[in-house]
Amino acid sequence: MGVYLPFMYKVITDSDITFFQQIVGVDYVLHQSHERFAEYSKDHTEDLVFNPDIVLLPKDTSEISRILSFCNEQKIVVTPRGAGTGLSGGSLPVYGGVVLSLERLNAIIDIDQENFQVVVESGVINEVLQQALDHVGLFYPPDPASKGSCFLGGNVAHSSGGPKALKYGTTRDYVLNLEVVLPNGEIFWTGANTLKYSTGYNLTHLMIGSEGTLAVVSKIVLKVISKPKHTILVLASFESATSACKAVSQIFSEGFSPSICEFVESEAFALSAAFTGLSFQQDEKSKAYLLIEFDGNYPSLLEEQVSELYKYIIPMGCIDMLLADTSEKKEFFWKLRRSIGEATKYNNVYKEEDTVVPRATLSILYDAVKEIGARYGFRSICYGHAGDGNLHVNILKDQLSDSFWNQEIKQAIKEIFLVAKKLHGTISGEHGIGYVQKEFMPLVLNSVQLDLMKSIKKVFDPNNILNPGKIV
Amino acid sequence: MGVYLPFMYKVITDSDITFFQQIVGVDYVLHQSHERFAEYSKDHTEDLVFNPDIVLLPKDTSEISRILSFCNEQKIVVTPRGAGTGLSGGSLPVYGGVVLSLERLNAIIDIDQENFQVVVESGVINEVLQQALDHVGLFYPPDPASKGSCFLGGNVAHSSGGPKALKYGTTRDYVLNLEVVLPNGEIFWTGANTLKYSTGYNLTHLMIGSEGTLAVVSKIVLKVISKPKHTILVLASFESATSACKAVSQIFSEGFSPSICEFVESEAFALSAAFTGLSFQQDEKSKAYLLIEFDGNYPSLLEEQVSELYKYIIPMGCIDMLLADTSEKKEFFWKLRRSIGEATKYNNVYKEEDTVVPRATLSILYDAVKEIGARYGFRSICYGHAGDGNLHVNILKDQLSDSFWNQEIKQAIKEIFLVAKKLHGTISGEHGIGYVQKEFMPLVLNSVQLDLMKSIKKVFDPNNILNPGKIV
Repeated sequence: MGVYLPFMYKVITDSDITFFQQIVGVDYVLHQSHERFAEYSKDHTEDLVFNPDIVLLPKDTSEISRILSFCNEQKIVVTPRGAGTGLSGGSLPVYGGVVLSLERLNAIIDIDQENFQVVVESGVINEVLQQALDHVGLFYPPDPASKGSCFLGGNVAHSSGGPKALKYGTTRDYVLNLEVVLPNGEIFWTGANTLKYSTGYNLTHLMIGSEGTLAVVSKIVLKVISKPKHTILVLASFESATSACKAVSQIFSEGFSPSICEFVESEAFALSAAFTGLSFQQDEKSKAYLLIEFDGNYPSLLEEQVSELYKYIIPMGCIDMLLADTSEKKEFFWKLRRSIGEATKYNNVYKEEDTVVPRATLSILYDAVKEIGARYGFRSICYGHAGDGNLHVNILKDQLSDSFWNQEIKQAIKEIFLVAKKLHGTISGEHGIGYVQKEFMPLVLNSVQLDLMKSIKKVFDPNNILNPGKIV
Repeated sequence: MGVYLPFMYKVITDSDITFFQQIVGVDYVLHQSHERFAEYSKDHTEDLVFNPDIVLLPKDTSEISRILSFCNEQKIVVTPRGAGTGLSGGSLPVYGGVVLSLERLNAIIDIDQENFQVVVESGVINEVLQQALDHVGLFYPPDPASKGSCFLGGNVAHSSGGPKALKYGTTRDYVLNLEVVLPNGEIFWTGANTLKYSTGYNLTHLMIGSEGTLAVVSKIVLKVISKPKHTILVLASFESATSACKAVSQIFSEGFSPSICEFVESEAFALSAAFTGLSFQQDEKSKAYLLIEFDGNYPSLLEEQVSELYKYIIPMGCIDMLLADTSEKKEFFWKLRRSIGEATKYNNVYKEEDTVVPRATLSILYDAVKEIGARYGFRSICYGHAGDGNLHVNILKDQLSDSFWNQEIKQAIKEIFLVAKKLHGTISGEHGIGYVQKEFMPLVLNSVQLDLMKSIKKVFDPNNILNPGKIV
């Protein structure tokens, strides 16, 4: 205990633990001896492990407030945690201390069908909300690959996207209002439950993407929309990854507005097929794929768009276009696509980068990643939300030495990030900065920007107890 | 000169003026003797007038930086100004000093058709961009009533909306990146030119809606979209304003997704018709209207939706539905709608409130406004972006005494705002807080929220030289 604690933080004592037990109840203070304790030392980021001193599972906003207020006074470090599905180490307790898990704040408080709004606690699983809405014909579009387990609070922390972000936007576009708890225990709402807001500095949007470093999100008011009645999904295979990347912006320039446009390297699908056991035979000529969906209320219009697309996409280097015309076939493709991350992890240690650039420059970024990989001697699996210009780059450890993996590789990552920057892009589109990308922030942000962020952090968290070691 | 200057600000001297002339050139330093000087003492807010000491017209970011850096050092107050079309007094130089007009930063720098992005200077007129995009089949949706004159920089300052915000969102939803100048003269970009961004605290979104109090926006990168090929517009008249308000949320609940849904009281159209000279005969039974637009690429689908709407809307208290089937008829209705503000101003002194609530509670807000008006003895003209729950309330001075107008009326406005708050709404949806709504902020925000805003202001502008007296 306490090995990661810099001198400024207090080591948790027995009397602190007694105090925490009084707030949340004895059963909701987890010690190292607890069977689930080890879960809280990890998230989905690489193979990183950091042990907290203690895990607290408050049941509501008031308990969060009492915990934070005490820790702020005592200078005990607190790392808020959603479902632990993050890919930048945002929920890792890098300085030990308290992990504050939001898993018990899992109530869907209100589905307001008249106003197309929902109120949820921050520990509600994304897909649980999606299913509840589906029953009443409503729709919450943000759908990260981890939607089956990730919490909406975590989605707010990173402004998570997912495939449907292309047409519908990321989490940011759906958050109307947030109940948050400041490190000093103060509870407040950041805005109003309205579609428009021009009432002072937008604290809601400042909280979104702040990765639990400014305040703890306890409740969320989300906008929802009518569910489009039909979708049509096609998988287009390409003779080269570059031509698939180039086709993305060409599709939009031709006037198509797909609801989804995902890019997948053939190797990524191979890994995923092996991992899931799905029988997906790849043609040798197919080097990459675009998974393209159209949605709407008129099936005939969707079919018309797919026929038109076929005409345009063939001259763009497309070899073939497969139509998923049943829900089983759609699910087959989605399972293949969604399992890539997990499949990569199962096979290898890897670092995941979340580069994002203007859409039409995607092929330049892709080619640069492969060139840099060849030069440094690493393999990468590339896939992602191509319509958004968001390329996930999984760098594989394979047989690389630990010293290369922990040090020299950073130079290669820097090179990739500098390409993204040169293309007017940045280092994270939806995974956030957290712990692992923090050191790369000075590549894309100068000292003016970083100093502003540090000063904003100080406004909210003057004692730096809340998720320290992240972002800034 | 200097009558509004509190002791903390420096009065501008002749040597300061010489320095400014060296930066922007003699022709671009306007004194009281200049024929255009008086323009800069007003915006479109009520009948308010505040004289600056001097008006500066920089031509680019570098000149803005040099002006701000000097003023920050010298503690000279600076009020940035767009086109002066604001309705909350955000560009009024309430402490005198420098008015920094952005009118010369009027270049459309790039229309990137491949990436669906544009780069503009902040003094570009909204409609000028819209027209330039129209030539290449692209579309920038935010369309405030003042679109013919307002600057995109001002739109960013308030996250302006307009009728199309219902389907397409406000300015906030289109801003990808901003070049800004801090009061200390530092120039930086707030983010990246990407559709997604999860790279630290979102400085872009913090700037949007900050009304020129944190930094001066010099360049803007905006997302644009494909222009829908067809629109269909109908004007539905209702037997009561309450039933028109209620119909708004019912229309959405029935599954309709109009691109526009505006509410207009019959009296507002009467004023506008008289002011514009448009021949618009109102049926005596018609007390209010909804102006509803559908857009898309298939005219037959739009017609189908209108036929369906007709069936549903009649039982909602609708008397009749007029179809604008030519571009002339559409323009007729839009001119009537857009001229309401100007027509009201022509006839009367008025205060404009910009309340916003969840859509289904609009009728409660409307009824409360009328009840409060009856109790306090004032007339009001109500209209606005009903689909967004955004009700503009123009309170008319008529024969009310000056003392009532300047003092007692505030109690009535407070009552209106408290109703909006109770409905989970707020005091401004798109006009901002500026000067005139500042005193009402404590009604909807508590001291925790206000203190956070004050501290954020201090981070960006420690000497409080930039647009002081606004928001916080």
